[in-house]
Amino acid sequence: MSQQWTFQITTRGRGTVEITDEVENFVAAAGISVGIAHVFVRHTSCSLCITENADPAVRTDLETLAQRWAPDDDPAYRHNQEGDDDMAAHARTLLAGESVTVPIGAGRLLLGTWQGIFLWEHRTGSHKRDIVLTVIG
Amino acid sequence: MSQQWTFQITTRGRGTVEITDEVENFVAAAGISVGIAHVFVRHTSCSLCITENADPAVRTDLETLAQRWAPDDDPAYRHNQEGDDDMAAHARTLLAGESVTVPIGAGRLLLGTWQGIFLWEHRTGSHKRDIVLTVIG
Amino acid sequence: MSQQWTFQITTRGRGTVEITDEVENFVAAAGISVGIAHVFVRHTSCSLCITENADPAVRTDLETLAQRWAPDDDPAYRHNQEGDDDMAAHARTLLAGESVTVPIGAGRLLLGTWQGIFLWEHRTGSHKRDIVLTVIG
Repeated sequence: MSQQWTFQITTRGRGTVEITDEVENFVAAAGISVGIAHVFVRHTSCSLCITENADPAVRTDLETLAQRWAPDDDPAYRHNQEGDDDMAAHARTLLAGESVTVPIGAGRLLLGTWQGIFLWEHRTGSHKRDIVLTVIG
Repeated sequence: MSQQWTFQITTRGRGTVEITDEVENFVAAAGISVGIAHVFVRHTSCSLCITENADPAVRTDLETLAQRWAPDDDPAYRHNQEGDDDMAAHARTLLAGESVTVPIGAGRLLLGTWQGIFLWEHRTGSHKRDIVLTVIG
Repeated sequence: MSQQWTFQITTRGRGTVEITDEVENFVAAAGISVGIAHVFVRHTSCSLCITENADPAVRTDLETLAQRWAPDDDPAYRHNQEGDDDMAAHARTLLAGESVTVPIGAGRLLLGTWQGIFLWEHRTGSHKRDIVLTVIG
């Protein structure tokens, strides 16, 4: 018994946008007690991830590390027609992933105290990002 | 209500093989309207990933970056009995992951326009890779 | 039809603890033939991952690489109040992920011969880690 919602988030360039509340609200509406919530972003240059929701410096530091893992404008890149940040964005998406799956118990997301769900925009410009949430009981 | 298929892909050494059509065909056969498709590779030296399906240079560049993330034949490796590419392959599998999960809506994979599902072989030689697809409605 | 279990693993600092048997036992108890097992850790400084279960040097080498991917005590980190290993642990969790999903067939995990499920502690000290297993048939 699956239920599904699609929603859109407008990003303001590189950085994270917390979407825990959006996901939690849909899960509450689903009215199922035990299951999973699968969240998926339909793009190849932004990620979904779970990380610490308390100190925003964690996400600043992840951005610093991501710049090492997949630098912008690297001379080795062959895919560079769409901007200095484009190939870096694809590589960061590969590393951080395009979906997260969270267990549901007692009708709520079973996230730990410090876990938040974030959309991580990897492009430097603003984008509209389509997210699909599927809840399975 | 789960349905499951197993199929095998023969790789030609390091690089990507698109399997979107195979997965889409099984999903169509499943005949479910809303749910998820979970694709899993039963090996520790190749990955499944979702990335851009248009410009093949994206996957060339991912290969270039993977060589930095987990170089072949690194002198620090202690696991080196099975070839110069073996430990690098395990590490790349860890980073890119051994499974992908894609939402299903209206009986089809809800991939974005530029998203393809790829088997990413990390060993330099040809291998037969077993993939398990589970569709949950 | 979902079933769910929560269990706790006490780690002894940085390194891996295999949990394949724990997950397999719950799957056997679930009594479902075909489906998926979703394993999730409710923390942001340790991971769940699937990697080779035979030669422990693979996991030693992953630790070596992780130290390059996200070094301890990096001068660039701004999140450093909770110890030299804290931000590194968040970044490693991002890369390796906080959940794994494994197909179930004939009532058993369809892992490959060399695949094991591991809790990967990224903090240097001992921690109690809560894991949620959800089995969906």
